[in-house]
Amino acid sequence: MMNFDFYNPTHIVFGKNRLTELDSLVPKNAKTLILYGGGSVKKYGTLDKIIQALPQRELLEFGGIEPNPKFSTLMKAVEMARRESVDFLLAVGGGSVMDGTKFVALATTYEGDAQSLLTHGFQPVPVETALPLGTVVTLPATGSEMNSGGVISHKGGKFPVFSPFSFPKFSLLDPTLTYTLPATQVANGIIDAFIHTVEQYVTIPSDGSFQDRTAEGILKTLIEIGKKTLDEPTNYDARANLMWCATNALNGLIGAGVPQDWTTHMIGHELTALFGIDHGKTLAILQPSIWTIRTEQKREKLLQYATRVWDITTGDDESRITHAIEKTRAFFEELGVKTHLSDYGVTEDRLEEVITALDAHGLTALSETGEVTLEVSRKILKISL
Amino acid sequence: MMNFDFYNPTHIVFGKNRLTELDSLVPKNAKTLILYGGGSVKKYGTLDKIIQALPQRELLEFGGIEPNPKFSTLMKAVEMARRESVDFLLAVGGGSVMDGTKFVALATTYEGDAQSLLTHGFQPVPVETALPLGTVVTLPATGSEMNSGGVISHKGGKFPVFSPFSFPKFSLLDPTLTYTLPATQVANGIIDAFIHTVEQYVTIPSDGSFQDRTAEGILKTLIEIGKKTLDEPTNYDARANLMWCATNALNGLIGAGVPQDWTTHMIGHELTALFGIDHGKTLAILQPSIWTIRTEQKREKLLQYATRVWDITTGDDESRITHAIEKTRAFFEELGVKTHLSDYGVTEDRLEEVITALDAHGLTALSETGEVTLEVSRKILKISL
Repeated sequence: MMNFDFYNPTHIVFGKNRLTELDSLVPKNAKTLILYGGGSVKKYGTLDKIIQALPQRELLEFGGIEPNPKFSTLMKAVEMARRESVDFLLAVGGGSVMDGTKFVALATTYEGDAQSLLTHGFQPVPVETALPLGTVVTLPATGSEMNSGGVISHKGGKFPVFSPFSFPKFSLLDPTLTYTLPATQVANGIIDAFIHTVEQYVTIPSDGSFQDRTAEGILKTLIEIGKKTLDEPTNYDARANLMWCATNALNGLIGAGVPQDWTTHMIGHELTALFGIDHGKTLAILQPSIWTIRTEQKREKLLQYATRVWDITTGDDESRITHAIEKTRAFFEELGVKTHLSDYGVTEDRLEEVITALDAHGLTALSETGEVTLEVSRKILKISL
Repeated sequence: MMNFDFYNPTHIVFGKNRLTELDSLVPKNAKTLILYGGGSVKKYGTLDKIIQALPQRELLEFGGIEPNPKFSTLMKAVEMARRESVDFLLAVGGGSVMDGTKFVALATTYEGDAQSLLTHGFQPVPVETALPLGTVVTLPATGSEMNSGGVISHKGGKFPVFSPFSFPKFSLLDPTLTYTLPATQVANGIIDAFIHTVEQYVTIPSDGSFQDRTAEGILKTLIEIGKKTLDEPTNYDARANLMWCATNALNGLIGAGVPQDWTTHMIGHELTALFGIDHGKTLAILQPSIWTIRTEQKREKLLQYATRVWDITTGDDESRITHAIEKTRAFFEELGVKTHLSDYGVTEDRLEEVITALDAHGLTALSETGEVTLEVSRKILKISL
């Protein structure tokens, strides 16, 4: 096991009928800015319930945070937070709203050029404070509710931003709030959580037994409940298990002390930026291809994945790995998510645009070993067609 | 899944050669009281290394915190902390030292009679502050390093004490610090972590899939590495996996949203208080008996435990459950821990003393359902002989 630090102070408030507890979670008398996305929180009454649950506070609203939240949009919220001397931010939505709200929290109190917050990659941004924030989660997927990071879109790129000061103070997870989600968003969320997990698990062995078995537990659960969450949208336990698995897939727990490989997310971000393919769908396209191209480097963990997650115990190593990759792809397809670039209208002549973007963003040595050069990325993209 | 809250702000600092980081973990200029137990931290040089790692702080020492730490001992530390206006407490040791230090943290700033802090059972003590504390863990077992609770002995009873203010600010877990532990303490620690896990898992079904699978992962890991940690005391990965599993067995994660049954610990505490049997050994004695007596109530989870943890897939339900209980007992015995009261010189004529103590401490309706009356406890004790 590798040395690690684990720190996660977010208070999780999980379960049915807990919106009324917001009054004790948001600081008393805090002038509070509620941030949300495209309006479904209004349509389905969640926003009204939240407003009712927060009497005796001056409430402001900032709607319209888009999927893959944009720096330019978020800076309008920053201006509002500064102008109105806001004390507390409350994100209501999915990963994009939560990610965006963390950025607003950091940028509002930051005295330099906020664009510079986008330049720190996998290092924390150099701040000593941020506005406090909480979240009400309506879409289980990104794990943003229990980590300190976000991904912000700006000028065609996607930029990770995080800090110990941007952990939500609390996150309220009510599985019933997900009942009204469109099936395609639920499927994207399941895949996002699944890929977060394998990117911290199907790497190279490092004898992190708790981490491996916890990752396997998340994957097995997602496989068990995936289809059910779509077929039975109001099945509480299925939604609750999805929601809690998605949170634990990216709260630092399964990645502590083990290697991580974020290739799928990094190339996926470029596919979203260039072709507008949903984030979850880019991951479903890329993961089988990445494992196919990098079987040699990931052999031991792919075999462990085949055995422990898919119960594939017969056949030689090659066939077991191939079988596990096929099963993974079939799982994504069963959720209604197509797994080839051509399904989304992307043709071979567009692939060099992806390579150019990876190069422009310095993503020329991806993976847990740095071996995913632009040439390897090109191979991955070609077999993803 | 049941509604739950999860909150755990302790910063875990895990790995080799990290004692030098104490300087950045303990607040600058904090007058710091170092608390420890019987002196092994002096004997093996850990205390010296800690003192060297903390220049520019006034350091005080309080040694002699015994196993099953006593209120009377801890109040001497409280007096010292008050008299010397200590700013920070640093526990160096295992569960008893960490538990005791949490009590000192709470009692030092408490204005009422400190004995009243022992009277709140499974409710948080009514305080609004505590001295901040950190820990350096030398014995993996209790999980005290990443939770807010402790168990304090007083006048023949053992009393749980916890508060959101008694989470360690940090816990430093260096597996190499466990290399010098006596085998019996390591075995006790493995069993303590194992029982913490099953007390949150072998209960009644509640569809907490992440919780169940994470619990199963801890149990499988402990089974895999248990003997190895004893046979190869300097096997780093074995010790690291033990240490991280023990922490996760009682940091709130696997118990969130599922029923819990602390019968084994509650009766075990009385066996320790009356007969001086090590805490871990009391658990090894009681758990097989409790499952035997309560097979009917725990049938579904015992079958899941048999299948997923011990890979017992053949035989009828009864035989699979019996087989799983036998395998559990054999695992404890393989660690060198005897699993019958008679092995510790306790004879049948002493059992009523245990019943009387349970009655005196109000422990007359134990378990996840409250069905473990004194009569059921009597049956459990009889078949434990």
